[in-house]
Amino acid sequence: MERALPPALPGGNNQGGQQRGTQSMKNSAILLISCPDAKGEVASIADFVYRHGGNILHADEHADEESGLFLMRVEFDPKDFDIDLTHKDLADFSKHFSPIAEKFQMNWRLALSSHRQRMIIFVSKYDHCLVDLLYRHQSGELACDIPLIISNHPDNQTIADFYKIPYVVVPTTKNNKIEAEERIQSLIDQHKPDFMVLARYMQILSNDFVNRYPQRIINIHHGLLPAFIGARPYHQAHERGVKLIGATSHYVTELLDDGPIIEQDVVRVTHRDTVEDLIRKGRDLEKVVLSRAVRWHIENRVLLYGNKTVVF
Amino acid sequence: MERALPPALPGGNNQGGQQRGTQSMKNSAILLISCPDAKGEVASIADFVYRHGGNILHADEHADEESGLFLMRVEFDPKDFDIDLTHKDLADFSKHFSPIAEKFQMNWRLALSSHRQRMIIFVSKYDHCLVDLLYRHQSGELACDIPLIISNHPDNQTIADFYKIPYVVVPTTKNNKIEAEERIQSLIDQHKPDFMVLARYMQILSNDFVNRYPQRIINIHHGLLPAFIGARPYHQAHERGVKLIGATSHYVTELLDDGPIIEQDVVRVTHRDTVEDLIRKGRDLEKVVLSRAVRWHIENRVLLYGNKTVVF
Amino acid sequence: MERALPPALPGGNNQGGQQRGTQSMKNSAILLISCPDAKGEVASIADFVYRHGGNILHADEHADEESGLFLMRVEFDPKDFDIDLTHKDLADFSKHFSPIAEKFQMNWRLALSSHRQRMIIFVSKYDHCLVDLLYRHQSGELACDIPLIISNHPDNQTIADFYKIPYVVVPTTKNNKIEAEERIQSLIDQHKPDFMVLARYMQILSNDFVNRYPQRIINIHHGLLPAFIGARPYHQAHERGVKLIGATSHYVTELLDDGPIIEQDVVRVTHRDTVEDLIRKGRDLEKVVLSRAVRWHIENRVLLYGNKTVVF
Amino acid sequence: MERALPPALPGGNNQGGQQRGTQSMKNSAILLISCPDAKGEVASIADFVYRHGGNILHADEHADEESGLFLMRVEFDPKDFDIDLTHKDLADFSKHFSPIAEKFQMNWRLALSSHRQRMIIFVSKYDHCLVDLLYRHQSGELACDIPLIISNHPDNQTIADFYKIPYVVVPTTKNNKIEAEERIQSLIDQHKPDFMVLARYMQILSNDFVNRYPQRIINIHHGLLPAFIGARPYHQAHERGVKLIGATSHYVTELLDDGPIIEQDVVRVTHRDTVEDLIRKGRDLEKVVLSRAVRWHIENRVLLYGNKTVVF
Repeated sequence: MERALPPALPGGNNQGGQQRGTQSMKNSAILLISCPDAKGEVASIADFVYRHGGNILHADEHADEESGLFLMRVEFDPKDFDIDLTHKDLADFSKHFSPIAEKFQMNWRLALSSHRQRMIIFVSKYDHCLVDLLYRHQSGELACDIPLIISNHPDNQTIADFYKIPYVVVPTTKNNKIEAEERIQSLIDQHKPDFMVLARYMQILSNDFVNRYPQRIINIHHGLLPAFIGARPYHQAHERGVKLIGATSHYVTELLDDGPIIEQDVVRVTHRDTVEDLIRKGRDLEKVVLSRAVRWHIENRVLLYGNKTVVF
Repeated sequence: MERALPPALPGGNNQGGQQRGTQSMKNSAILLISCPDAKGEVASIADFVYRHGGNILHADEHADEESGLFLMRVEFDPKDFDIDLTHKDLADFSKHFSPIAEKFQMNWRLALSSHRQRMIIFVSKYDHCLVDLLYRHQSGELACDIPLIISNHPDNQTIADFYKIPYVVVPTTKNNKIEAEERIQSLIDQHKPDFMVLARYMQILSNDFVNRYPQRIINIHHGLLPAFIGARPYHQAHERGVKLIGATSHYVTELLDDGPIIEQDVVRVTHRDTVEDLIRKGRDLEKVVLSRAVRWHIENRVLLYGNKTVVF
Repeated sequence: MERALPPALPGGNNQGGQQRGTQSMKNSAILLISCPDAKGEVASIADFVYRHGGNILHADEHADEESGLFLMRVEFDPKDFDIDLTHKDLADFSKHFSPIAEKFQMNWRLALSSHRQRMIIFVSKYDHCLVDLLYRHQSGELACDIPLIISNHPDNQTIADFYKIPYVVVPTTKNNKIEAEERIQSLIDQHKPDFMVLARYMQILSNDFVNRYPQRIINIHHGLLPAFIGARPYHQAHERGVKLIGATSHYVTELLDDGPIIEQDVVRVTHRDTVEDLIRKGRDLEKVVLSRAVRWHIENRVLLYGNKTVVF
Repeated sequence: MERALPPALPGGNNQGGQQRGTQSMKNSAILLISCPDAKGEVASIADFVYRHGGNILHADEHADEESGLFLMRVEFDPKDFDIDLTHKDLADFSKHFSPIAEKFQMNWRLALSSHRQRMIIFVSKYDHCLVDLLYRHQSGELACDIPLIISNHPDNQTIADFYKIPYVVVPTTKNNKIEAEERIQSLIDQHKPDFMVLARYMQILSNDFVNRYPQRIINIHHGLLPAFIGARPYHQAHERGVKLIGATSHYVTELLDDGPIIEQDVVRVTHRDTVEDLIRKGRDLEKVVLSRAVRWHIENRVLLYGNKTVVF
């Protein structure tokens, strides 16, 4: 059995945990597949779902010609599905699906909408992305659990308290980087998130840390990659007299600010916008772009190949 | 066999005709389906294509919950397909596919990218949409043939000549509406278009005419339906102090300016824009929106249900 | 002296009131003018400001040809201005400026950025616009005071408490409309707002009430006026298969949902968006569009003429 | 007298030349000013125009705090202006305006809308920008004269002939760069353009050439500067999996692709867009962005400071 899509974080599945949000999401199972392009793949998958009693709600696929890769997302209603999906690790499903997976050399992953993913948010002082995520979470728009917020500053304790989310301060200085990351690691081991969001977290995580969580850490970058990378991007953009500013949300990889892009957007600016206006417009853009990326991740819409994404 | 999707115009298929454009489109077959939602549809269709040697390139589907309708577009490579697709009327394909079609009560249509559709353009005096369509056609972006341009004015003869497209003037007055439409009808009967485009054609076609060509006449409406319907929409919009103006491309039905929407877009305006500026910005919008709608129609991406479209 | 631009609400000026927000706004004076177009107006105004020691920071103007109207916004630094601007009612300024104002039949108004405007927010159950306004207020982006939130429901008390804004519930039923509005009127008389914002307030205010506050009540309309006016606009839009949904912020007038437009925007939707998705996207749009309109109003950027606005 | 704004090309003024386009532009005079920020500038300028009988139609200004620079554009109706504007070199105007100009150390330029600017277009093989400019020119949207098109390829002769614009081929190879540029220079000396447009001209002009025409050469760059500079930008963007592609129009300076930005825009792309789709979408973007920049330049709306522009 191939199963090379990044696994959920250890123990992340089936942990229950606090239940927030009121949105009654339809119960569905989502099968994510990537494999070499070959005839009969759609037929085999659709037939598998059908034979076992599933009703396909949505199916999306993409054949990337250059890489010869086939990517697919199948969402089906598991109400009458005859394979037990409640078992830990989905072992029954694996057993039944593995002949097809092996035949087509598939990397695959099955996600259940009934499993609320656990998201840990990292934040520094800027609160706009955090406030936006918490509001969307509470309103039911982000159907996940938030076991923890981690920050290197105490400033956002109040808003965390308002939304009743635990908030842990891990102070980070030039001299305690290793200890701080160990502390963060132990918090992660304890709270077992499915994924993490850097909501304007101004510390750099080590390569070791980042590599442990492929396609599991989402960042928001205040700029249109690869333009204006580095310090004070809005000052750079203002200096340059640009007519648009952008924001990019991407998965974190070893390549700083250069991981696979999930979403981007821009907003128009003019000479009448001061640097402060650019920053304000940038804030609005950053929170919207980040929240879209997070929602798509939660809904298991993002597939990775090479250094880029397909968002189904 | 169900086959209720609007048929191509009489004789439109397999007519050959003049070949313009240089784009080497990949040879593909596109199966368009709409039917009541039911289990096993994706599996049956994918299996059918696979069993007969087709390789699915793209598959899109949409289940509309309210209407209980299932819509699908499957594009496959017919290189090794074992059913003869060259036969007139695709009778062989029909014979093989009909069991599935009947089982699921499908309305379906098979389109071949190798068949260049025939598009007749209607135009009055405003030339911006016509010029844009002709340029895109010549550059290969619109992979269709244009056997004819019909106009109620001689003004655009020159541009038609430049692109070497026959141009026929059918003068239309209050008193000759019936005769003019008969003349138009005979031109259509003679040139057998697959579809028609009203590229700012300022004459109203009769209900009888329109009903003869369901989902076969594309119009561009200078406004965001249903806002500012009627005469001088840009003057209305200016009067009202709107901050955005829009354009809508839609299929023509009996309901004037109220057929199924294919594409819409807007552009920002301010108090500094005069009515003339609105009209200029509107022109740019109209040609872009119309050309998108035409391209999607040519690529068989537009499916109809109720009074609305799915654009796959 | 002409002074027909809508006056501030009674007693609204110079009331001090609670001070929130940390943005250190530059001290400036803003002169807003509308009058018949005539030669020498810009020169007279610029010369007036210069002679009295003011330094013009920004000047915007618009001549509307159709109505023959001239509109202008002049923002100047009053640091060395030799006319006393601290006096109540700006009587000194009026005395000095009235010769010019009379000569050109000007309607005019002088606003000081040092005066924090007082904004009362009305809200029903939907909280997205309220939450957004309160966050922007607290972050300093909306440089105004909020003496009060008025609601016909108790639901949003918690968020008001978090931001420490007084929240008064005025229950409104079919049978107590007159009493409810009297209660609201007495709250307004007591708290003396400069303007009011209907942040998804689902009650209709009487014409008498509305006419008392021309250009002083800002509403957010979930739709692109005049399209899809009426109940359940997102359902209407979904039914119609639109490819864009919009939101409009406007001043409230007797004409329901038809007052002068301040700002509009749209977001793209597809057949894959359910009505719930439309509502979610609409929420994001509504709060952004409303907050822009509110900020422009606070910055005295919006001038009215006829039934439309100029946003400088 | 200060007059450091880039002068028109030699002999470019008052040359008459062929008259195309039907738009009856209002006769107006446009005064462009840049100088150190100081009190009384607006008043002095407005008063000057008024005293001499001009009626200000539009006035825009911008004070750049960082550089301490003041920029202004005043458009006035010269019908009753008592200074002779018909004289070559506008010597009378200079004489009257110089006291103000000297007092405030102004760089200034006066442009008359009655003077149709002369635009030379450079193009290589890609024709989309050329076709778009020629169409807009013919429809009267671009109120300028086009004395010449210069190309290093014969391919676009046909479209130039259709629009009756002289087309000169200057073949350019690795080995004749100097001779080719000399030939181009002599064509320019002969045809005396006010400005030049590189409408996808794939040759690099020498620094000497470029420096001769500051703010007089407009380029379209297929990318959002500074992202994806270099060869095959759409391939780079596709490789990187971007969700937006952009285009930038800018003045050409010694810094390749890094001159002052006039206009930028973006269009959304997805994984379903092939490199060919990106190129097609890019084409549409490029022509729209370039035509906006050209129109603003013709209308004398673009002022330069530092390495950036103000577009009034």
